[in-house]
Amino acid sequence: MPEPWAFGMADRVRFGEIDVLGHVNNAAYLRWFENLRIHYFSDYGVAKYDGKPPKIVLKNIGLDFKAEVKLNDEYILTGRTVEVRNSSFTMHYGVFVRGVLTTTGHAVIVSLNDDNSKRPLPDALRETFRNRDGATQL
Amino acid sequence: MPEPWAFGMADRVRFGEIDVLGHVNNAAYLRWFENLRIHYFSDYGVAKYDGKPPKIVLKNIGLDFKAEVKLNDEYILTGRTVEVRNSSFTMHYGVFVRGVLTTTGHAVIVSLNDDNSKRPLPDALRETFRNRDGATQL
Amino acid sequence: MPEPWAFGMADRVRFGEIDVLGHVNNAAYLRWFENLRIHYFSDYGVAKYDGKPPKIVLKNIGLDFKAEVKLNDEYILTGRTVEVRNSSFTMHYGVFVRGVLTTTGHAVIVSLNDDNSKRPLPDALRETFRNRDGATQL
Amino acid sequence: MPEPWAFGMADRVRFGEIDVLGHVNNAAYLRWFENLRIHYFSDYGVAKYDGKPPKIVLKNIGLDFKAEVKLNDEYILTGRTVEVRNSSFTMHYGVFVRGVLTTTGHAVIVSLNDDNSKRPLPDALRETFRNRDGATQL
Repeated sequence: MPEPWAFGMADRVRFGEIDVLGHVNNAAYLRWFENLRIHYFSDYGVAKYDGKPPKIVLKNIGLDFKAEVKLNDEYILTGRTVEVRNSSFTMHYGVFVRGVLTTTGHAVIVSLNDDNSKRPLPDALRETFRNRDGATQL
Repeated sequence: MPEPWAFGMADRVRFGEIDVLGHVNNAAYLRWFENLRIHYFSDYGVAKYDGKPPKIVLKNIGLDFKAEVKLNDEYILTGRTVEVRNSSFTMHYGVFVRGVLTTTGHAVIVSLNDDNSKRPLPDALRETFRNRDGATQL
Repeated sequence: MPEPWAFGMADRVRFGEIDVLGHVNNAAYLRWFENLRIHYFSDYGVAKYDGKPPKIVLKNIGLDFKAEVKLNDEYILTGRTVEVRNSSFTMHYGVFVRGVLTTTGHAVIVSLNDDNSKRPLPDALRETFRNRDGATQL
Repeated sequence: MPEPWAFGMADRVRFGEIDVLGHVNNAAYLRWFENLRIHYFSDYGVAKYDGKPPKIVLKNIGLDFKAEVKLNDEYILTGRTVEVRNSSFTMHYGVFVRGVLTTTGHAVIVSLNDDNSKRPLPDALRETFRNRDGATQL
């Protein structure tokens, strides 16, 4: 896994992810990154809190397509947190096929209380983002 | 359909689009906008050219989530082209539920030749974008 | 809606449901029938019980493909309960395009308690299945 | 891989395959079996013919649910051809989680010419089905 990515998963393109144009459908990338987040959140302790866990929701998400990904391509998904704010953080994502970065993504993720008020991120999580991913505190 | 949107479709949230958090999954919005594009492209003549049709591909796409959309919600999808360049154009998308804009999207779409060189958009299409959507020529 | 179907919904094929072979992907039909069931269950009162609602789960499901369904085809989904047993029932499904039955489906659906023991169907529901769908009590 | 299965693939349940009931959605199994078929067809030479390849289409497909499969479960997909006819064959599928068969599937697959007339399976393929999978010639 190339620098500066600290977290990744390997997988292979499935038939059902290919659209009539013969390449991976744009919605499939969001599924991939969503699944990466679940593993990343678990590994980094994003939902680990004293007491009731927060609601972790997407505020926005985006994808940039640099090269096509095709049926049976083996890919590595990468993810890292690049910026941390009081109750939200920004993640970057990548898709690598045979060492080439084919697709990038980014998302802003917010921590909320049940009444949808903002819930500050715990200090331990900020430190994990800084130490493991080199995230910047804003 | 509210101003300035000139093109829209009505539909209703399906069970399979809801995720374990109880709201529409982020990938489902990309499916909705993709389907809107197919109808929009057909209606605006995006793939209508003298001779061989161009390859119309996404360069990037993004989503902003403003409010949750739930099972069985009836929604209106809207789309318009806001900017036109030599061989690409930028679209904006919206999702309205009971008159409230819950989700916005944007995409840059590129017209290519078979060898992936850029293919200029025809003047008639630029004019359609300007006249129907109020697009700006850049 | 042709006899003997008593419940149906109209919709149109979406781009994301088409696979590389140019017709509706087999998994998409299961999504359609799933969505039909949600509306059917609500309309027929399947989950309406005195006290705690049962778990309603699929025991099996099947599809028969008679004719291809293509992009933008308008279709009518139909569903009915054909047989009722003590704690389960069998549904049939259909997809009609321009009056032609292109696809049929069938499912056995079971009513369970939280501990996964079988939970008998209420008499009112049996009667609804008989009256509205002509279901046979087994 | 348990007998009598001769072909299998290992994978892990993704977040996007889980529905609001907390288990793998029924349509996701069809996606898994579809992807298995692509690899199986390639490995067994199903689409390898003298001259033009046939159209390989599903005639029917079914699923039986024996036990729930949950988020992050590691599973083994298995597939084999159990019966061969002149221009079609029947496959069985399985999903194993921690050694337990949770889900079975079956499909009838037909080989067609471009005009949708039946196209006989080549003898070499029949022999492969018999030798590798123990298929019965009908």
